[in-house]
Amino acid sequence: MSSNTKKIPVAILGATGMVGQQYVALLANHPWFEVAVVAASTRSAGLRYGDAVLSRWYPEIPFPDSLKDYLLADALDIKSIAPRVKLVFSALELPNKEELQELENAYAQAGVAVVSNASAHRWTNDVPMIIPEINHHHADIIPAQRQQRGWNGLVAVKPNCSIQSYLTPLFALMQAGYDISHVAVTTLQAVSGAGYPGVPSLDIIDNIIPYIGGEEEKTEQEPLKILGDIRDGRFFQREGLTISAHCNRVPVRDGHTACVSVKFAGAKPELARIIDIWNAFRSAPQELGLPSAPTQPIVYLDETNRPQPKKDRMRQQGMAINVGRLRACPVFDIKFVGLSHNTLRGAAGGGILNAELLVSKGYIK
Amino acid sequence: MSSNTKKIPVAILGATGMVGQQYVALLANHPWFEVAVVAASTRSAGLRYGDAVLSRWYPEIPFPDSLKDYLLADALDIKSIAPRVKLVFSALELPNKEELQELENAYAQAGVAVVSNASAHRWTNDVPMIIPEINHHHADIIPAQRQQRGWNGLVAVKPNCSIQSYLTPLFALMQAGYDISHVAVTTLQAVSGAGYPGVPSLDIIDNIIPYIGGEEEKTEQEPLKILGDIRDGRFFQREGLTISAHCNRVPVRDGHTACVSVKFAGAKPELARIIDIWNAFRSAPQELGLPSAPTQPIVYLDETNRPQPKKDRMRQQGMAINVGRLRACPVFDIKFVGLSHNTLRGAAGGGILNAELLVSKGYIK
Amino acid sequence: MSSNTKKIPVAILGATGMVGQQYVALLANHPWFEVAVVAASTRSAGLRYGDAVLSRWYPEIPFPDSLKDYLLADALDIKSIAPRVKLVFSALELPNKEELQELENAYAQAGVAVVSNASAHRWTNDVPMIIPEINHHHADIIPAQRQQRGWNGLVAVKPNCSIQSYLTPLFALMQAGYDISHVAVTTLQAVSGAGYPGVPSLDIIDNIIPYIGGEEEKTEQEPLKILGDIRDGRFFQREGLTISAHCNRVPVRDGHTACVSVKFAGAKPELARIIDIWNAFRSAPQELGLPSAPTQPIVYLDETNRPQPKKDRMRQQGMAINVGRLRACPVFDIKFVGLSHNTLRGAAGGGILNAELLVSKGYIK
Amino acid sequence: MSSNTKKIPVAILGATGMVGQQYVALLANHPWFEVAVVAASTRSAGLRYGDAVLSRWYPEIPFPDSLKDYLLADALDIKSIAPRVKLVFSALELPNKEELQELENAYAQAGVAVVSNASAHRWTNDVPMIIPEINHHHADIIPAQRQQRGWNGLVAVKPNCSIQSYLTPLFALMQAGYDISHVAVTTLQAVSGAGYPGVPSLDIIDNIIPYIGGEEEKTEQEPLKILGDIRDGRFFQREGLTISAHCNRVPVRDGHTACVSVKFAGAKPELARIIDIWNAFRSAPQELGLPSAPTQPIVYLDETNRPQPKKDRMRQQGMAINVGRLRACPVFDIKFVGLSHNTLRGAAGGGILNAELLVSKGYIK
Repeated sequence: MSSNTKKIPVAILGATGMVGQQYVALLANHPWFEVAVVAASTRSAGLRYGDAVLSRWYPEIPFPDSLKDYLLADALDIKSIAPRVKLVFSALELPNKEELQELENAYAQAGVAVVSNASAHRWTNDVPMIIPEINHHHADIIPAQRQQRGWNGLVAVKPNCSIQSYLTPLFALMQAGYDISHVAVTTLQAVSGAGYPGVPSLDIIDNIIPYIGGEEEKTEQEPLKILGDIRDGRFFQREGLTISAHCNRVPVRDGHTACVSVKFAGAKPELARIIDIWNAFRSAPQELGLPSAPTQPIVYLDETNRPQPKKDRMRQQGMAINVGRLRACPVFDIKFVGLSHNTLRGAAGGGILNAELLVSKGYIK
Repeated sequence: MSSNTKKIPVAILGATGMVGQQYVALLANHPWFEVAVVAASTRSAGLRYGDAVLSRWYPEIPFPDSLKDYLLADALDIKSIAPRVKLVFSALELPNKEELQELENAYAQAGVAVVSNASAHRWTNDVPMIIPEINHHHADIIPAQRQQRGWNGLVAVKPNCSIQSYLTPLFALMQAGYDISHVAVTTLQAVSGAGYPGVPSLDIIDNIIPYIGGEEEKTEQEPLKILGDIRDGRFFQREGLTISAHCNRVPVRDGHTACVSVKFAGAKPELARIIDIWNAFRSAPQELGLPSAPTQPIVYLDETNRPQPKKDRMRQQGMAINVGRLRACPVFDIKFVGLSHNTLRGAAGGGILNAELLVSKGYIK
Repeated sequence: MSSNTKKIPVAILGATGMVGQQYVALLANHPWFEVAVVAASTRSAGLRYGDAVLSRWYPEIPFPDSLKDYLLADALDIKSIAPRVKLVFSALELPNKEELQELENAYAQAGVAVVSNASAHRWTNDVPMIIPEINHHHADIIPAQRQQRGWNGLVAVKPNCSIQSYLTPLFALMQAGYDISHVAVTTLQAVSGAGYPGVPSLDIIDNIIPYIGGEEEKTEQEPLKILGDIRDGRFFQREGLTISAHCNRVPVRDGHTACVSVKFAGAKPELARIIDIWNAFRSAPQELGLPSAPTQPIVYLDETNRPQPKKDRMRQQGMAINVGRLRACPVFDIKFVGLSHNTLRGAAGGGILNAELLVSKGYIK
Repeated sequence: MSSNTKKIPVAILGATGMVGQQYVALLANHPWFEVAVVAASTRSAGLRYGDAVLSRWYPEIPFPDSLKDYLLADALDIKSIAPRVKLVFSALELPNKEELQELENAYAQAGVAVVSNASAHRWTNDVPMIIPEINHHHADIIPAQRQQRGWNGLVAVKPNCSIQSYLTPLFALMQAGYDISHVAVTTLQAVSGAGYPGVPSLDIIDNIIPYIGGEEEKTEQEPLKILGDIRDGRFFQREGLTISAHCNRVPVRDGHTACVSVKFAGAKPELARIIDIWNAFRSAPQELGLPSAPTQPIVYLDETNRPQPKKDRMRQQGMAINVGRLRACPVFDIKFVGLSHNTLRGAAGGGILNAELLVSKGYIK
C-alpha cells in the first residue's frame, strides 16, 4: 500500500474507535511508522475507512485523506493482517478479556509486535506495562517473554490513562532519592476517557459523576507494577508504596486532572528542590530522541491556578505532564496538581512512544 | 411594611447579590421571619428591588412579586434600618474585612441580631460559627458575647460553603464514639460559589480550575473551631484533628462535591455501622422542629455512582447532606463522597437555619 | 394495585425511558389518574421498577417511592394490561412505525384510551394530534374514529416537542384575527429531547449540532394538521400557511428555544397589541379547569434577554409557553423568541393535559 | 526592538484583551509583520506583557516567549508609538465611540495605517469596512480618504464577527449572477465573542441567552456597506437586499454558527450548482497569495450534521468559512448553515488579512 519501503508497516486494531482514530491521526506523518492496515470488528470489515469514521472524527488533527479509501480489515483475521505488518496497535474494545488476550497472543505468535491500549494483558506476568519515561527497562523482559511463549513477536501494554497525570512526577522524585510511601489521589477525568458514544450528555451537563467503573482499582494498582522489578523473567510489584484513589467524571472533553497528596518514606525534599527535579527530569525517550517524546516530559507551571485542561492539555503535542500548585500538606508531606491529555499521552501517544522505545531497543525491526 | 405583627421583621444586607437573592427567595413564605428591608450598597440604594434583580434572578424559586416595589435601603444606613428589624442577614461583599466587622458590630450595638454569611467574623473569639446540626451549643456563647461587647444584639456566623458537604457526616461519626485524626478532602465546587458575575464562562467551559483563593485554608481550619470548645467566654479549637484540602472549580451550576478520606484516631466502625449512623443521625434542628431543618440531615445513597450535583443537590429543599460511595481506603481507613447545595445548605439556607436556632434558644425575640 | 377506586387507572408504556419517567413523576399525585401499570419492553419485563430506573432517574421531581416495587409489565402483553386500566400513555420507542401503530390500535380495540407521544399515528387520518390550548375540538373526531375503526377505546397523539415553543403564540394571534402566511423558525433544542442515553457528551460539550433527524419536517408540517379542519371524519391540513425550520441541538439539558419570524396574511397587529393578546390568551384547558393546565398558557417576559431555558423553563410547572423579544422584522413582519420545557409541556405534561381534556369531554370515563 | 529590518513593524492596541492576544499569537511568526509595540490602557502601561497576560492567555497558539519582557505602552501615547511602527492593529475597548475615532484618526494623522476591529469607524463615510474575499476593491478609497482627511496614514476596519459565517457564501452566489433580495439569519454565537471576562458562567451553563446587545443591528446593516459601492470618495449601501437577524449566545467557546435562509431576486441556482460555486470560489486574497489567506475560503461539508463549532472552527487555521446542510426552503428559496471562528476569521485573523491586502495594494509600505 506504500512505496516507502523504509517505514515500518503497522496495523491499527479498533481503528474506528476514539483511541484508534487518535492513532491514525498521530501516525499520519510519523517518521518511522506507516499505517498499512486499519482494522475493526468483523461487523465493520469491508467498509471504506473514510465512510466509517468521517462523520464522527474525534481528533483535533484533521482526518488524513490518504486513508479515506482504505478498506477496513477484520481485526480477527490475523492470517491476512499479520503478513502485511511488523507491528499492531491494539485499541480494540472486546467485552471478553480472555478473547482479547488470545487475539493479541495470536498476533505475537504470528511474529508481530503488539502494543496494546487494552487492559487485558496488563497483569500478565511476562508482559511489560510501560510508561517510557519511567520503566523503559521493563521492555527488556521481551527476550524472556519470547522464550517462555515461544513466539517471535511480542506483547507490550500501556497503563490506564488515569495514572499518567501523576505517576511520572512521583517517579522523578523517587529517582532523585526521595522515596514515597503513601499517595492519595483524586482524579477529575474527561469524558473522552469513556470512548464514543461514552458518557451521555444528560449525565454530565451541569453535573459530576463521582464513580468510574474499575478506575480506582487501576489507579491504585497499576503503578505498583510499573515501579516494580523484573526477576526471573517476571514482574514483582513495588513494595512499601500504597495508593488510594477517588475517580470522578467531569464535564471536560479532554485532559485528566489529578489532585495528589504525597507522603515520603524518608527524606523530604524542599518544595523548590522538587520543582527543579521535575523541570530537569529527562529519561530514555529524550535521550534516545524518540520522535514522539516531549522535550521536557514534566513541566511545572508557576501560576497559582494551573494546570487547567483547556489551557495545558496540548502542551508539547499533548505529551507533556503538566504539574502545578506544589505546596506543603498538613496531613501528608506535599500536595500538587497534575494534568495530562488522556487520549494523547494517556492513550495513542503513549502507545506510539512505547512502540518507538521498542524499535529503539531493537525489539521491533 | 407588613401588617402581620407576629412574624419577626428581618433585613437582608446584600439583597441584590446571589446569596442575598437566595435569602429573599427562601424567606418569601417563612413561618417565623418576614422581609421588612432589602438593603444593598450605597450605589444601589433607592432602586426598586424588582428593577435591580429581576433580570438576573438566580434562585430556582421564582421572584416573590410582593417585594418588587420595595426600595433598596443603603446597608450602611444602620440608623434607618435597625429600628425596623430584629434580625439582619448579612450577605454583603465588602472588600475590607475590618469594615464589615464594624458594620456587623454596629448592628449588634443597635440591638439587632446579625447572622452573617461573610467571613469577617468567623475567627472572632466570641462569635460562634455554627452548623446547627453540629455545634448548636456554640450559640450559648451569646450571653458572654453580649456582656463582653456591651451590646443587646448579637453576631453569629455560618462557615464556608466548602465544608458543608463533609463535616456533618464526620461529626456524626465522632459523636457516635469514633474519633477522627486525619482527613484529606478534594472538593469539586460549583460556579455559583463564586457569586455573580463570578467565574467567566471562558474559564470554565470544557475546563477545570484547580484553585480557589482562600478556600483551602477555610476548608482546613474552620472545622476546628466548629468542633471546638467554649471556655471562659471564648472558643478553643479542636485538637488532634488535621485536615488537608484540594479545592477545584468545576463546570457545575450548584452543588459542591467532596471526595473525603478519613483516618480514625481509635476504634474503626464497620462500613455498615457508618451508614446506619449517618441515616439515623438527628440533632437539635430536628429535635426543635426548626422550620428549615431537613427531616433527615444526612442521607446515604446506595447507588454506586451517587451523590451527583444535578440529581441530589435539591434533596430536602437543598438542605440535606448527601453521602455515598463509602468504602475502605488503603491509605486512610475509609473513603466517601459528600455533596450539598452550596447556596442553600451552604449559604442562605444555612444562615436561616442558624437564625431559627437562635430564635428557638431565645437569643432572638 | 390500589384501593382508591375513584381515580382512573392508567398504564405507562415505556416507563423506563425518559419521557416515561416524566409521566410517572407527574402522575405521582395526580387528582384524576393513578398509575396502575408500568410497562416496558419485553426485555425489561419482570424487573422491579425501582431497580430499573432509580440509578438513571431523570425528572426533577423525586422518584415516587410507592412505585419502587411495582413489577414492570411487558408493554406488548395487551391481554394482561388492558383489563387493569382505562388509559395508556404510550411513550414506547419502537424502531418500526407500523408495529407501534398496531400496538396502539390493539389497546384501543381492547377498549382502552391511548394517548401517545410517539409519532406513529400523527398523520393517521382519523387520529387527532392535539395541543389542548389550540385544537381541543379535534378531540371530537373520536366518535367518528370509533365508528370507523369499530373500537371502544381511542387513539389520540401529541405533536413533536419542537413546535410547542412557538405554535400556541401563533395560534393566539390567528384566533384574534391576524392570519399568518409565513413562518421561519430556528430551534435550539435541549439534549433531553433525544432521550437517554441520547446525545453523547463528546458531541455536545463546547459544540452545536445543526441537525436533528426528521425534526425539521415535523416542525414544518405538524402545525398544519393541528391548525386544520375536520370534515367527514378526517382531517384536512391548514392551507395558506408555510413554515420553514432550522433545527439545532445545543448544550442545554431541558427547554427548547425557538427564534421565530412571522409574516401576516392580512392585517398586522401593533406590537403592544400582540403582547396583550398573548398575556390574555386563555383556552379550553383553563376554562375547563384541567388539573395540569397552566393558569396563563402564554407568558410574555419584558426583559430584553428572555426567555432563557435555565430561568424560564419551569414556569407554571413547566407547562407555560414563554415568549419575549417581540420586535419588528425587516424581512417578515414580526420576530420573537419562544421557549417551553420539552419533556414537560413538550412531552409528558402535554400528554397528560391531552388525557385530561379527553376525560373532561367524556371520551375517557 | 528587532534586527530584522525587512518586516513591517506593527503595534497592537489593546494587546491584553482577548482579540489583542489573538493578534499577538497570530503575528508571532508572520512573514511580513513584526510586533514592535504592545499597548494597552494607561492603567496597564509599564507592566511586562508576560506578567499582564500569561495567567489569562486565551489563544490555542502558545504565548510567544519572545514578547514576555516587552513593556506595555500606553495606547494613547501616540507620540511615542507612531514613530516606531507603520501599522497599528486597534483592538481597544473604549466606552466612548468618539474617543476611539479620534484616537484612530490621530494615528492616521501621524502617518500610521490603522486596521481596526472596533466598531467606531465602521459607518464613517470614507473608511472601508473590508472582508478581503468580498470587497477588496473598497481599499481603493484610501487615496480619497487621505486627500479628504489630509493624512498620510489610513484607517480601515473589519466588520462584526457575526456576519462572517454567512456573508462570503452569499457574496459568492451574487458574484456568480444569482442576486439575493432577502436573508433571514439566526446566529448561535460563542462566548469568546463577548471578550474576557465576558459572559458569566452562571448565565450560560445549561442555558441560552437569546439576546446580544447591538448584534442584530450590526448583522443586518454591515453587509449593506460591504456589498455597496464607492462613488465620489464615499460609500453607498447596497440596495435591494434586506436582512433580518436573531442573535443568540450559546455555551460554546469559539465559533459562530449561522442558520441562513435566502431568497433570490431573480434566477435561482440548483443546489448542486451552489455547492460548486462555493467550493470553487477564490478571490483577491488567494490570487495575491496573502500569507493569512485560506487556500479555499468557502468549504462545503457533505455530512448531514455539519458544520459544527468544535469540529470545524479550526479548518485552514480558523480562516475558512464552513458551510453545510444546503437544502430547499419552503418559505424562501434555500437554507444552509455557516460557521466561522469568531476570534480568528471573525477578529484578529480577519484584521491581519485586511492589513496584508493593504500592503499588497501598496497602501502600507
